[in-house]
Amino acid sequence: MDSEDLENSPNELVGVSRGYTSSKGDLLERIAKIEGQIRGVAKMVEADRYCVDVLTQISAIQGALKKVELGLLEGHLRHCLIGHGGGPTDPNEQTAEVMGVVKRIVSH
Amino acid sequence: MDSEDLENSPNELVGVSRGYTSSKGDLLERIAKIEGQIRGVAKMVEADRYCVDVLTQISAIQGALKKVELGLLEGHLRHCLIGHGGGPTDPNEQTAEVMGVVKRIVSH
Amino acid sequence: MDSEDLENSPNELVGVSRGYTSSKGDLLERIAKIEGQIRGVAKMVEADRYCVDVLTQISAIQGALKKVELGLLEGHLRHCLIGHGGGPTDPNEQTAEVMGVVKRIVSH
Amino acid sequence: MDSEDLENSPNELVGVSRGYTSSKGDLLERIAKIEGQIRGVAKMVEADRYCVDVLTQISAIQGALKKVELGLLEGHLRHCLIGHGGGPTDPNEQTAEVMGVVKRIVSH
Repeated sequence: MDSEDLENSPNELVGVSRGYTSSKGDLLERIAKIEGQIRGVAKMVEADRYCVDVLTQISAIQGALKKVELGLLEGHLRHCLIGHGGGPTDPNEQTAEVMGVVKRIVSH
Repeated sequence: MDSEDLENSPNELVGVSRGYTSSKGDLLERIAKIEGQIRGVAKMVEADRYCVDVLTQISAIQGALKKVELGLLEGHLRHCLIGHGGGPTDPNEQTAEVMGVVKRIVSH
Repeated sequence: MDSEDLENSPNELVGVSRGYTSSKGDLLERIAKIEGQIRGVAKMVEADRYCVDVLTQISAIQGALKKVELGLLEGHLRHCLIGHGGGPTDPNEQTAEVMGVVKRIVSH
Repeated sequence: MDSEDLENSPNELVGVSRGYTSSKGDLLERIAKIEGQIRGVAKMVEADRYCVDVLTQISAIQGALKKVELGLLEGHLRHCLIGHGGGPTDPNEQTAEVMGVVKRIVSH
């Protein structure tokens, strides 16, 4: 799914509260830091740095992304369980949606 | 480990062939694409997009990073086994180094 | 946590419906099959089978265990969201409990 | 791949040293312990134990299997790099074989 497809997502609601709304500033800072880490990896490759050092940096990025993922999942789950997540309200649909996320997380 | 520490890595050798040297252009393109994906996630968060859509994009990034990781590991391993990787030449040290990489990959 | 500790779990309630109650027979069959696969691995090691073949069998077992895990998580989640899981009823506690499970799943 | 297929594996050589030969007793003990843990999970399900407790036990098993996997991979890799693993001797084939193992490990 790319950004363009997502523009038309049926889940889009202006001004709705998201699972990450209360920590949005912190989340954006984490993402900006990860973007910087990715640029650092590009510089390492351009400079012909040792494979293992490049891999170590990529692992650090994966770890940072995993923390962001788990934080987003936690916020989403709390919203589902409390009952105003902006997503499906049927427990079976909510379960299917959350399991879709978890399966994607565990698959990479 | 951050970029500054790596500047002084004992493994740095100017002009040495790396496991990724033959596919360096392709590797840099993949990393640039991932950087763009990260910026896309930041825009989604700024626009208060639905948690599950943000998570789907992050999973796509994790998958792309995993492909880069496995490609780098494969090149590194081939270099180790053929015998001119720019790293340790002792089989026990090579094994320890590769296992360190694998353990980091499986941990995230 | 070993079986003995679990005997005294505060969550134990006789006759309560679990997330897996409706598919208990199928679940027990899957677990019995996994037990057989583990015994198969022991036989392979006893017979000095090739490392890579042993590793392939272990990966099959890990895949089977992951399916069992995800199935149990799905049932548990549905019970939480519908509201009679036999666990905590406070959404924050439910979220913390589910996130604990997810973090353990993604850590291995 | 099941045990029967493996009986006819081209990699089978009687009396050959494997990557795990020096620690075979320890390896068999670990596998026997995991078999006992699997039986423990079956008992928990039969006793209608709480989902989260069952999941915690399964995660412990997955962690134990991962340690066995990484130990086997390490032994195999050392054998490949030293040069008498009983597998392929061509570095490209060795690399492909090891990468196949790593990809299976990271996929679950």
